[in-house]
Amino acid sequence: MTDLTTGHVFIAMSLDGFIARTDGSINWLLRQDTGEEDHGFDAFISGMDGLVMGSGTFRSVQEFDPWPYKVPVVVMSASMTVDDIPERLRGGVEISGERPEALMERLKSRGWKRAYVDGGQVIQSFLRAGLIVDMTVTVIPILIGEGRGLFGAVDRDIDLELTDVKSFPSGLVSNTYRVITA
Amino acid sequence: MTDLTTGHVFIAMSLDGFIARTDGSINWLLRQDTGEEDHGFDAFISGMDGLVMGSGTFRSVQEFDPWPYKVPVVVMSASMTVDDIPERLRGGVEISGERPEALMERLKSRGWKRAYVDGGQVIQSFLRAGLIVDMTVTVIPILIGEGRGLFGAVDRDIDLELTDVKSFPSGLVSNTYRVITA
Repeated sequence: MTDLTTGHVFIAMSLDGFIARTDGSINWLLRQDTGEEDHGFDAFISGMDGLVMGSGTFRSVQEFDPWPYKVPVVVMSASMTVDDIPERLRGGVEISGERPEALMERLKSRGWKRAYVDGGQVIQSFLRAGLIVDMTVTVIPILIGEGRGLFGAVDRDIDLELTDVKSFPSGLVSNTYRVITA
Repeated sequence: MTDLTTGHVFIAMSLDGFIARTDGSINWLLRQDTGEEDHGFDAFISGMDGLVMGSGTFRSVQEFDPWPYKVPVVVMSASMTVDDIPERLRGGVEISGERPEALMERLKSRGWKRAYVDGGQVIQSFLRAGLIVDMTVTVIPILIGEGRGLFGAVDRDIDLELTDVKSFPSGLVSNTYRVITA
């Protein structure tokens, strides 16, 4: 595993484990008054060589203007083609239909040491493949009842080591874990 | 609502939101080395007038000897009878088939101000009924993938206010929330 690019997660979920409503909406996530709080995202992404995301996540961010990512982005999709990428983004976004291990091997050969892995389905598949080495999960103080879950089935228990906790006046709690069984 | 007994939750869940495996097992919960850590349960229960639990929780604790609870226990069940309660426990355990509001009204008239509400299904129904005023959720650093979830469907978003966070050397993180929409 040490030969592959390592995967790193930085994500927010509701206390009941959702990263978006069933329709993809994240309005519940923006409702907290977080003022000037620094939840650590800039520091996190500054240590990443690139971003691997799912097609669902890509669809929800592709309209962002300006494009928020300075690092190269790989969208995991078996069905998307370059035509699905807005022209203004084609320099920084590519599509991959590879399996997680194959992708991480190729990214390593391209010089990526650390990849930010984003999106529920992609995080789940990379976790199952043992490719995630740490996760910062920021818990939003709300129950939304249903939606797209952050976590899913695992082949066996995945033990975690808590390496950092930060709480914020808004009520967000940011927990960083190292994945022990990766 | 102020006339009813208030409900209070103190529970542990895996980072992926489960309180037990599908078969009820909590072996994953006891695997952390928590040494002499005080997670606050004694202080919590000393402020409770009694405990309301589901039949599933009762089945998993009824063999405990000595019986761990000094406060009276109400088991929420539409099908259990007094014959389902071991004789040694009958002085301190009763069964209720009431709806949550009716129970909390009756308990109030009996002098209960605060009830410890335990068990996934019972917590969910009391949350939906607006009867839970605060919750301490201790997150165990593990993903188990499937099992009995702590939370379930809600009629509308339930906003929470974080009132306390404690982390422990074992990696447990104890989050206390006040329920805003109760």
